[in-house]
Amino acid sequence: MSFKTYIESNKERFLSELFELIKIPSVSAVTEHNNDTRNAAKFLFDQFQSLGMDNCEICETKGHPIVYAEKIIDKNLPTVLVYGHYDVQPVDPIELWDTEPFNPTIKKTDIHPEGAIFARGSCDDKGQMFMHLKAIEVLNNNGGLTCNVKFMIEGEEEIGSDNLEAFVKENKEKLKCDIIIVSDTGMINKTTPSITVGLRGLAYLEVELTGPNRDLHSGHYGGSVANPINSLAKMISSLHNENHKVTIPGFYDDVINYSDEQREKDSLIPFDLNEFKDSLKIKDILGEKNYSTVERRSIRPCLDVNGIWGGYTEEGSKTVIPSKAYAKISMRLVSNQDWKKISRLFTEHMQNITPKGMSIKINEHHGGQPYLTSTDSKAYSAASKAYMSVFNKEPFAVKDGGSIPIIAQFEKELGVKTILMGFGLDSDAIHSPNEHFGLSNFYNGIETISNFYKFYS
Amino acid sequence: MSFKTYIESNKERFLSELFELIKIPSVSAVTEHNNDTRNAAKFLFDQFQSLGMDNCEICETKGHPIVYAEKIIDKNLPTVLVYGHYDVQPVDPIELWDTEPFNPTIKKTDIHPEGAIFARGSCDDKGQMFMHLKAIEVLNNNGGLTCNVKFMIEGEEEIGSDNLEAFVKENKEKLKCDIIIVSDTGMINKTTPSITVGLRGLAYLEVELTGPNRDLHSGHYGGSVANPINSLAKMISSLHNENHKVTIPGFYDDVINYSDEQREKDSLIPFDLNEFKDSLKIKDILGEKNYSTVERRSIRPCLDVNGIWGGYTEEGSKTVIPSKAYAKISMRLVSNQDWKKISRLFTEHMQNITPKGMSIKINEHHGGQPYLTSTDSKAYSAASKAYMSVFNKEPFAVKDGGSIPIIAQFEKELGVKTILMGFGLDSDAIHSPNEHFGLSNFYNGIETISNFYKFYS
Repeated sequence: MSFKTYIESNKERFLSELFELIKIPSVSAVTEHNNDTRNAAKFLFDQFQSLGMDNCEICETKGHPIVYAEKIIDKNLPTVLVYGHYDVQPVDPIELWDTEPFNPTIKKTDIHPEGAIFARGSCDDKGQMFMHLKAIEVLNNNGGLTCNVKFMIEGEEEIGSDNLEAFVKENKEKLKCDIIIVSDTGMINKTTPSITVGLRGLAYLEVELTGPNRDLHSGHYGGSVANPINSLAKMISSLHNENHKVTIPGFYDDVINYSDEQREKDSLIPFDLNEFKDSLKIKDILGEKNYSTVERRSIRPCLDVNGIWGGYTEEGSKTVIPSKAYAKISMRLVSNQDWKKISRLFTEHMQNITPKGMSIKINEHHGGQPYLTSTDSKAYSAASKAYMSVFNKEPFAVKDGGSIPIIAQFEKELGVKTILMGFGLDSDAIHSPNEHFGLSNFYNGIETISNFYKFYS
Repeated sequence: MSFKTYIESNKERFLSELFELIKIPSVSAVTEHNNDTRNAAKFLFDQFQSLGMDNCEICETKGHPIVYAEKIIDKNLPTVLVYGHYDVQPVDPIELWDTEPFNPTIKKTDIHPEGAIFARGSCDDKGQMFMHLKAIEVLNNNGGLTCNVKFMIEGEEEIGSDNLEAFVKENKEKLKCDIIIVSDTGMINKTTPSITVGLRGLAYLEVELTGPNRDLHSGHYGGSVANPINSLAKMISSLHNENHKVTIPGFYDDVINYSDEQREKDSLIPFDLNEFKDSLKIKDILGEKNYSTVERRSIRPCLDVNGIWGGYTEEGSKTVIPSKAYAKISMRLVSNQDWKKISRLFTEHMQNITPKGMSIKINEHHGGQPYLTSTDSKAYSAASKAYMSVFNKEPFAVKDGGSIPIIAQFEKELGVKTILMGFGLDSDAIHSPNEHFGLSNFYNGIETISNFYKFYS
């Protein structure tokens, strides 16, 4: 039977199994859901067992467990490692959901006229991760696996994958593989597939600027002492120049510059600036001079204030000059920037531009390295053919603006590249109310992944 | 009997009466204290009656009542109107108080070796306002009043005196007077008296800057769209130039420039810059070029951000480009700036510098006119002599950086100037935990005020 036919014959069951998984509210950030995260892990464990996988295990960590399973059919054949996560984002603000977040509901949308699954985790990452389990079932029932496969599904991706790095370091032999595949990204649009070959890194810091030793009355002191909010605003303002380049000395030193040829090729990636502006209801864009919007959000680093606060922020007014002002500032990084080096450069620069007489404290929140892989590999080529066979279009090789720090970590620890085969859409509202995942994205994903094994092995 | 002797003989009772008033937690901002504010008004009503005042009245307003009382001994004699307030600030943060805020406690401090009353309202304004009642008692028992006196004590000063303006407008005849005296300001230090002849005005606005229509993932969008926090920081930063002058066009147009002679005279007002810096634990000061610290906080206008917020401000990190960023911004004004004009100039300027493609919303919170009076008046001269007779020093005529908008309003509605006879100290921690008022400040205040009547009438 063709993969497509098998999927078509079993689609109702695939969906009801995914619904079972989605119904478990495995919110990793909320302690009271600890039983749920464990139940989601158990659900996967049972699934792996019924798929005939070996060495199925719920691996304990200091936090939520990691589910492992493998099927080694021949040690001489290549091995694929599938990574994904079963935990989901919190549902707040719950009042903005049109349906219950853990009661998956099929609704038609303009983009998904065949229907989409509305639920927390429907796309990120239960829906996308579960496609990989179903692909194994497709293969099992249609000729069998032709290479080895391992699964590592974690429960802490939405809270920073704190225990995954240690797990990988301690299980290098177990996780030995030739390629890692992950479905936790997106595609360009419903009919235009893409493979993500680049991810931005991240350096995220928090700044605390202190002026006077206590909050002051703005009448008695206003005009005579530096106000930490005004000063912080000035410091932040100075972090970009008139070309919207980041002014931190050394910031661009390690940034890869792409050839005109490569940039021209990338400019063919479908993107409609008017649609982009319209979707955000903005009348104008802003970014680094001499780069396109697509480039600004993929191959160029940037700096954003993610949060700022200080002084009186409640209703009404209070005439205060605060003692302190705070900002959370993050930088998205590209190859070959190093997040630790950039964090250091940021810290030094902020210290240098701190006004005389004020003091600054800078804490690193976290960071991750950027990731880049070539399209010139057996695995990329297999993935490309797999998409081609389902979507009748060659996938674009895109660089994604987001960060999945663990991907660079996998390369460092296991020495293996990752192929990011995403099937989500920008409009899926992951991390937001009314998250959803198109039914055809789900079924096409299962077929594409099944085909990947065919072309890879 | 001399005033001093009478006060000395009655000081324990004066204190215990003040304690009774302080014990009533008349926090005007908190609805659940509405009974307490009324009880404080009743306490004053009873006091005025026992002082033999006429037409004592608890005047209802839309908010907390105003207590009125008068003693007209001869229509041909001048009339003094005493203004004060019986409401107090909230006590938060309660955990920083060393004693219970509404259980007045006498403790010695370095500045007040004779002891100070620690309690909310001990200085602002129960302690200072109550001195005026006790001065009437002193006069009653030592020769009697020699001019007419009226009292108007309100209960909403700490929440903006919202209903006082209407009361004044509706009771112009009742409030007719020749001079207003108020004790709600400070003196230079414990042995150096001062009379406040200038107050800054205030224009307080709130800014909401909107970029994209929703919060965005800073990975997917970072670098390609304007971030409202970064943009607001840039706008705020541009509001001061390198000489720390406010850059809003027209901002300084109506500012009084003082003669070199006046500035030299004012430079004699005791002020120790090192002590100032030390008290705030700051290593450097910042302010408008070519003006001294004293001038910057009195005769020069300024602009401060009183609050800023936007994006993710909780613990940890979230990679978000927020849709909106907010700031509360106020300007202290000096004669002859008009707060409505300045609010308009601010609004227009902020609109002009809003980045293309963003939108801005500006709300006026409130405002008040600056106030200035001359030292060349009968009332000022009487006040000056009164201080002289108690402190053996001529008081300095100072301009205060704070704002008491109702003072300018009194002049507008009643056509009468105000003499601000303050007895508080900077170190009294008004509006803060551990507010206190020196015992000698209290008793010297009663004596000085009593003497004022002697010299005025």
